[in-house]
Amino acid sequence: MKRTGRRPGAPDTRAAILTAAARLFATAGYDQASLRAIAADAGVDQKLIAHYFGSKQQLFVAAIGLPLDPTVMLPAVLEGGRDGLSDRLAEVLTTLLEQPDFHQRLTGVVRAAASSPDLARMLREFLAREVFEPLAGSLDSEEPLLRANLAGSQVVGLLMARYVVAVEPLASTPAPVVAAAVAPTLERYLVGPLTG
Amino acid sequence: MKRTGRRPGAPDTRAAILTAAARLFATAGYDQASLRAIAADAGVDQKLIAHYFGSKQQLFVAAIGLPLDPTVMLPAVLEGGRDGLSDRLAEVLTTLLEQPDFHQRLTGVVRAAASSPDLARMLREFLAREVFEPLAGSLDSEEPLLRANLAGSQVVGLLMARYVVAVEPLASTPAPVVAAAVAPTLERYLVGPLTG
Repeated sequence: MKRTGRRPGAPDTRAAILTAAARLFATAGYDQASLRAIAADAGVDQKLIAHYFGSKQQLFVAAIGLPLDPTVMLPAVLEGGRDGLSDRLAEVLTTLLEQPDFHQRLTGVVRAAASSPDLARMLREFLAREVFEPLAGSLDSEEPLLRANLAGSQVVGLLMARYVVAVEPLASTPAPVVAAAVAPTLERYLVGPLTG
Repeated sequence: MKRTGRRPGAPDTRAAILTAAARLFATAGYDQASLRAIAADAGVDQKLIAHYFGSKQQLFVAAIGLPLDPTVMLPAVLEGGRDGLSDRLAEVLTTLLEQPDFHQRLTGVVRAAASSPDLARMLREFLAREVFEPLAGSLDSEEPLLRANLAGSQVVGLLMARYVVAVEPLASTPAPVVAAAVAPTLERYLVGPLTG
């Protein structure tokens, strides 16, 4: 299949940065891989990384092909406090479930995480540093990190069941219906009583 | 590494059946693959399948290496009705999370499901026929199949987060603590109000 039209930015530079990032994140891990080392490996000025991708976390999201950046979604949900939290969670989940090309991109990440201990470690470090720790820090609950983990587990499982295995009727239920059913689970994990 | 001691049954016959089963489930799907065809493919009497594995569902569980058979766990949980359901769910989850070698076997299944559309279809058919439909049939709730799917999504996500990505502190939290936190979610999906 032939691509037509131009992609934004200079594809070669972007691609070189992504390749170097994937390599260094895999060998050094998310925490240890520096933007400076990635730039050197790609043979580009470090400023170009900021130009094309923004932060290290955004570069990571692009390099491993995460369908969307969890670090931009969660703070928005939590800023409003507990009032209406479940509704805001349902809204964000709906957006997540309505991403185009979700199936393909997600199965790639899942396959890679299950196939490569390096990628699993990268994901673990990334999620800890950029998702679970900030999320836990914004929770006024006991055991905030475990709570963040549990909420993450439900989101991952929902995506696996809906897109990778595609069980029915879950796979064909409209996103807002699914989101409304799952949001109370996330709310309880984040701010409710942890046991029944 | 050298194996010592004898395995139960005749290893060659068992292995031949498993190989044939994996092949026929993959090509024909879970529903269409017959025990008769699997026996013919393996060159054994069909009665030997029953002898070594019991039912078609048990053969499937063995052939794709599922860590344990969900079809034997759920009926036991649901038989007691709603009283104490959350506690019984927590018990079963604890047992599940304490399976030895879980990480290795689970990542194999996850990797295969994400890599092979055939295996994803098999899993989907198997889960529908042997888990979600019986489970839904025993639920006295509206939308029982969707409820069964949602409960399954939380279990899969928990296993992914704890064993495949191994996020902390979830991965090192004692199984009974994790199970107690997750059981109310499963209870709500199965028999509680679906939306908040």
